[in-house]
Amino acid sequence: MGRVTTRRQVLRLDGARTVARPDTLVVEEPLEIRVAGESLAVTMRTPGDDFDLTAGFLLTEGVLRSADDLRAMRYCAGSIDEGVNTYNLLDVELGPGAAVPAGAQRRFYTTSSCGVCGKASLDAVRTTAAWEVRDDPVRLDSAMLAGLPDSLRSAQRVFERTGGLHAAGLFDAAGRLLCLREDIGRHNAFDKVIGWALREGRVPLRGTVLLASGRASFELTQKALMAGVPALAAVSAPSSLAVDLAAEAGMTLVGFLRGTTMNVYTGAHRLGL
Amino acid sequence: MGRVTTRRQVLRLDGARTVARPDTLVVEEPLEIRVAGESLAVTMRTPGDDFDLTAGFLLTEGVLRSADDLRAMRYCAGSIDEGVNTYNLLDVELGPGAAVPAGAQRRFYTTSSCGVCGKASLDAVRTTAAWEVRDDPVRLDSAMLAGLPDSLRSAQRVFERTGGLHAAGLFDAAGRLLCLREDIGRHNAFDKVIGWALREGRVPLRGTVLLASGRASFELTQKALMAGVPALAAVSAPSSLAVDLAAEAGMTLVGFLRGTTMNVYTGAHRLGL
Repeated sequence: MGRVTTRRQVLRLDGARTVARPDTLVVEEPLEIRVAGESLAVTMRTPGDDFDLTAGFLLTEGVLRSADDLRAMRYCAGSIDEGVNTYNLLDVELGPGAAVPAGAQRRFYTTSSCGVCGKASLDAVRTTAAWEVRDDPVRLDSAMLAGLPDSLRSAQRVFERTGGLHAAGLFDAAGRLLCLREDIGRHNAFDKVIGWALREGRVPLRGTVLLASGRASFELTQKALMAGVPALAAVSAPSSLAVDLAAEAGMTLVGFLRGTTMNVYTGAHRLGL
Repeated sequence: MGRVTTRRQVLRLDGARTVARPDTLVVEEPLEIRVAGESLAVTMRTPGDDFDLTAGFLLTEGVLRSADDLRAMRYCAGSIDEGVNTYNLLDVELGPGAAVPAGAQRRFYTTSSCGVCGKASLDAVRTTAAWEVRDDPVRLDSAMLAGLPDSLRSAQRVFERTGGLHAAGLFDAAGRLLCLREDIGRHNAFDKVIGWALREGRVPLRGTVLLASGRASFELTQKALMAGVPALAAVSAPSSLAVDLAAEAGMTLVGFLRGTTMNVYTGAHRLGL
């Protein structure tokens, strides 16, 4: 679509030297997601793969569970800025089995009772998740895992030009890249990959590894779990609540995946440890 | 409070060598912000400086403009998990001049009309911002700017232990660090710094530079603008919409601030360029 990057003039300083030159920036634009005409969410995202992003968002928020729940998605024709469609508003038609939960404008891990805490967040995910990953028998070779960050980086197209994008990569147990998505928001990169898988009929994603180019937060772990992914790997650190959720769900969580070193926080049995 | 980091057992792999050892993780917990008993938002954050975080969030969302608008903040006494206060629910009492805008559960840069686009986002910020930064006469020395990332890093306490935190640092025009805050969410780190400034009676933050340890997004630029900060610097790349907003507001935006090199995207006159 030619909307993923854009160029702006910049003054580049290097010590006392100043050069005016064009610089490539990653594009950030709002996407409003509507269901049956009702606004559900607005996210700042990098344009592109908007249908995947929307499908993945609806899956990981518990609104739908399979591609059958997704009847149609279309850019709102009335979404016009200076005579041009902005492509920033998607309207979704759900299938008969799916519905937006009451109060879905608030994140589902919000509890309405006084007493919000990490444990309540874990409980909310457990009651919403459609699949168990605990019994996924996939075996993961540590040398295969060590190679994933390089595979991801060599497949990234936009990051090299802008230095400004998070990436999510979905791999099979042999380390083959199934899907790569980039976005200025790491949660959006995850939603794009998961939405791709949903639309391909691959959810639940048994036997796969999902790799994050940065940190592993509760939100990313929750998204992986909602898609039935048994193993989450991250180039940087996980948070406490990410580790707690992975432990409780029986998911393998690997962090600080750099070179031949890595930290295995949960589910080490899948690495034969 | 001892809740910023926690320790978990981890298997550390280095090639064929595997060692079991404790690892320090950054804590992630939900914080629910209520105004007069009504839930306004839930954010996943690193506990600590919750009053600053809440004050900064309310300022940058346009709910309040000065410390006078903030009558009281207290942890909800009913927020109990297994007999212990979770310290994850803050109730805010606003002063007579402040009120939650209608529909504030949705981000204020969301437009209700069909036609959401980057331009609408810029317009929404312009009509909400309380201060002009365009005329701020502060002069910024490029050598001073080049030293900020090192100042930030040497003052960071948690990052070294966990590798898992974003930081925001507020500096005066001489490069002196006024306030540093860390959080697993970069928007939270900004809110914590801005909330500190609000509660100290320092808003609008004329003559200051706000430094982000990562990328500069639209959201961070908007937060800086809402606090009257005339210059935003980032260690990594800005997004297109961040540059657009800074340009429109007359804010200085510097990216890729590394060693003696940096990119000046907007407001180069403050560096004498």
